Amino acid sequence: MRVITLLTDFGASDPYVAETKGAILSRCDEAVIIDITHQVEPYNIKQGAFLLLLAYKFFPHDTIHVAVVDPGVGTGRRGLVLKTRNYWFIGPDNGILYPAAADDGLEQYFEIDLEKYPKIGGETFHARDVFGPVAGELAAGLEPAMREVDVESIVKLEILATRFEGDEAQAEILHIDRFGNVVLNIDESGVPGHLRPGCDVMIGLGGKQYRARFVKAYGDLPAGSLLITFGGTGLLEIAVSEGNASSLLRAKPGQKVELRISPSSQ
Amino acid sequence: MRVITLLTDFGASDPYVAETKGAILSRCDEAVIIDITHQVEPYNIKQGAFLLLLAYKFFPHDTIHVAVVDPGVGTGRRGLVLKTRNYWFIGPDNGILYPAAADDGLEQYFEIDLEKYPKIGGETFHARDVFGPVAGELAAGLEPAMREVDVESIVKLEILATRFEGDEAQAEILHIDRFGNVVLNIDESGVPGHLRPGCDVMIGLGGKQYRARFVKAYGDLPAGSLLITFGGTGLLEIAVSEGNASSLLRAKPGQKVELRISPSSQ
Amino acid sequence: MRVITLLTDFGASDPYVAETKGAILSRCDEAVIIDITHQVEPYNIKQGAFLLLLAYKFFPHDTIHVAVVDPGVGTGRRGLVLKTRNYWFIGPDNGILYPAAADDGLEQYFEIDLEKYPKIGGETFHARDVFGPVAGELAAGLEPAMREVDVESIVKLEILATRFEGDEAQAEILHIDRFGNVVLNIDESGVPGHLRPGCDVMIGLGGKQYRARFVKAYGDLPAGSLLITFGGTGLLEIAVSEGNASSLLRAKPGQKVELRISPSSQ
Repeated sequence: MRVITLLTDFGASDPYVAETKGAILSRCDEAVIIDITHQVEPYNIKQGAFLLLLAYKFFPHDTIHVAVVDPGVGTGRRGLVLKTRNYWFIGPDNGILYPAAADDGLEQYFEIDLEKYPKIGGETFHARDVFGPVAGELAAGLEPAMREVDVESIVKLEILATRFEGDEAQAEILHIDRFGNVVLNIDESGVPGHLRPGCDVMIGLGGKQYRARFVKAYGDLPAGSLLITFGGTGLLEIAVSEGNASSLLRAKPGQKVELRISPSSQ
Repeated sequence: MRVITLLTDFGASDPYVAETKGAILSRCDEAVIIDITHQVEPYNIKQGAFLLLLAYKFFPHDTIHVAVVDPGVGTGRRGLVLKTRNYWFIGPDNGILYPAAADDGLEQYFEIDLEKYPKIGGETFHARDVFGPVAGELAAGLEPAMREVDVESIVKLEILATRFEGDEAQAEILHIDRFGNVVLNIDESGVPGHLRPGCDVMIGLGGKQYRARFVKAYGDLPAGSLLITFGGTGLLEIAVSEGNASSLLRAKPGQKVELRISPSSQ
Repeated sequence: MRVITLLTDFGASDPYVAETKGAILSRCDEAVIIDITHQVEPYNIKQGAFLLLLAYKFFPHDTIHVAVVDPGVGTGRRGLVLKTRNYWFIGPDNGILYPAAADDGLEQYFEIDLEKYPKIGGETFHARDVFGPVAGELAAGLEPAMREVDVESIVKLEILATRFEGDEAQAEILHIDRFGNVVLNIDESGVPGHLRPGCDVMIGLGGKQYRARFVKAYGDLPAGSLLITFGGTGLLEIAVSEGNASSLLRAKPGQKVELRISPSSQ
C-alpha cells in the first residue's frame, strides 16, 4: 500500500485526472491515490506550489507527491523526481515542486528521461504519459528512467514569508479559501510575543482601514465579527466569524496588506 | 480494509480535505476513504446533517462516518464519537451527526479528549487535527482518547418530516439537487394510499399554483413536464422530466410548499 | 484489488455519487473506485459517451467502467453489461456505453434483470440500486442477475470522426475543456502528411476567420498565441498558449468549424 497524491490545474469536468490515475494504476494497482486539489487556476504555477507546500507534510512517510501545472509541457522543460527527507516529489521543472521539497529537505535530484515514455496523441499531456507512469513505477518498486542531476540546475521558486517589525508588518495575500479567509505570508515565527488573543490589529487594504480582533478560534467572536487568527494553514488569516472576509474587504491574492497592532489594545 | 467517509463544507479548491485524508492515512494506511460531499454551504450544519442522513446507510457495516461543518471549532464545543447499531459517527457536537446517528439507533456516546490531540498552527482545523486522527485510530483498531458521556448532554438537531392530512400537506423544501429536483420533507409513510401514479397534485409555492403529475419515474412523462415522484432520496420530489424544476418554480431550500391532491385526478 | 470507474451527471454537491460507492463497497470491499467525472451536463448522454470513450483505455485490464447519464431511468429502458476485449461496461441501454465498448471490441452483451435488484424509495436511482450493485458483484467474482442478448438489440450511438480532404476539413466541436481548448472530431489518421509543425491553418467559426499555427506543444508559441495541435485526447485541438481559445473564439460544443491549411505556410 503506497500513497500517491495528485495536485493539478485539470479541474473536475474533463477526463484528464482519471486518465492520470489509470496510468498510475496500470503500473501499480496497490497505489492509494489521493487528490490534493485539481482546482488550481489554469497555468498558475505559484498557486500550485503554495497549495502543495501546505498539504504535503500531512501524508505518511514515503508518500509520492505528483504536482502538474505545466504551461511548458512538450517544450524543452525537464521532468523531475525529487527525493526529500520524508517524501518523493514528481512533476515539471518549473518551480512547482520546489517550495515543498525544499521545506522537507532536498536530498536527491533526478531528471526524467522523457524520451523513454511514449506520448499518446501529442506532446501535451505529460501527467498521464510521463509523471503518472513514473509515480506508478516508483510505487511498484521499479526504477523509473531517470538520472541524477545537480541541484543548481533545477528551477527554484520562493514563497516569501515576512514578519512583524515591532508593531507593524507589510504582508501579502497568498490565498483566499472557500470560506473567504484571507491567508497572509506570516507564520507564527513572524509574530511578536505581545500580539496576544484580545489584541486589536489595524488592517490597511485597498486604501481602507479595518479593525480586527486577534483570537485563537473563529468562533471566539460573534457571527459577523472581523478577526485575525492562525488558520489551519499555520499562517495568519483575516476572517469573519461565520462570514466571508474576502467579500467584506474585496481582497484578492497578490494584494499587499498593512498590519499594525493597535496601541489601545496592548 | 475499513471504510471512512468524509462530509464537510471545505470545497474542492483548498488543501483541507487532502490534509484530513493525510492525517487519517498516517494512522491507518489500510483505510478506504470515500467523499460524501465537501460542497455543503459554508457553516450550514443543518444541510450537512441532512446529506449525511441520506447517505450514511448505503455504506458497509462498521463504516466510520466523519462529518465536519464546524463554525464553533476551537471554542468550547465538544468533539463526539457516536456508536450506533451499524456505524460510527465522528464530528463536532453541534447536531450534524445527530439525525443520521439517531436514525440508525444510538448505542454509545463518547466525548473526545481534545487536549490529547495536538493542533497544528491554531485551533481552527479539528477535521485534520482531531476528527481525522480519531477516525484513523478507530480504523486501525486503536482506542482514541475519549470517555463515555450521557446521551442527554449531546446537541440534538431534528429534520422535521411531515405528512398528508387527507388530500393536503404543508411541506418544506429540504434540498435542491444538481438536476433542480426539489426535495420535500415527506417520505413514503407520509403519503396517503390514494395518491397513485397518474394522480395530479396542485403545488402552491411563492404565491403561485402549479399542477404536477404523480409518477413512478422521471421519464414517465415527456421532456419538460412538471411531475412529482419519490426520488432516490426516498423523499417526495418536485421535478421536471429532463429539465430543472427549481428554476421553473424559483424554489429555494427552506421555503414552504402546499400540496393538494387534485380531485379531478382521483 | 479490482478497479471500478464511475462517470455520471450527478455533480459533487449531492450524496448520489457517495451512495453509489457505498452500494459497490457493500458488495466488494476490495474495489478501488476511481471517478472519471461527475460533471457531465445533466441528461447529456452524448457528452458522457464521448468522455468515457476518451478515458476508458488508460485503465488496467479488466477494469469495470460504470457510466450513468440516465434520463430514462425507471421507464422501459434496459440495463446493460457489456464485455469487451479488455474491459467491462455497465450502464443504461441508451448509447452511453456504446462508443467506448465498440472501440475496445465488443464480445458479449448482457441485459440486467432489473426486477432482481430492489429499488429504495422509488424507480429513480438505478446507479445506486442496480448498476453499482452489479459492478460490485462482478468485482467480487459473483454472477449478476443478467442474461445474454443479441448485439443488434442494443442502442447504438456514434461519435462521428471526420478527416481532411486535401487542404480542407469540415469539423465539429466535440468538447471544450477547462483550459478552453476546443476539441475537434479529427484524429491523427484524419490529417494529411503535409500538415507539419510550422504550417498555418485558417479556422472558420461563427462567420469569422482566424489563423492558427500548427505545433507539437502548447508552449511552442508565446503566451497568447492561437494554435492548433493534437491534445492529450489524441484529437485535433484549437488552443491558446497559456490562454483560453473558447473565450477568444466564442466556441461551443456542437458548432461546425472549417479548417483550411494555408497555402503560404506549406
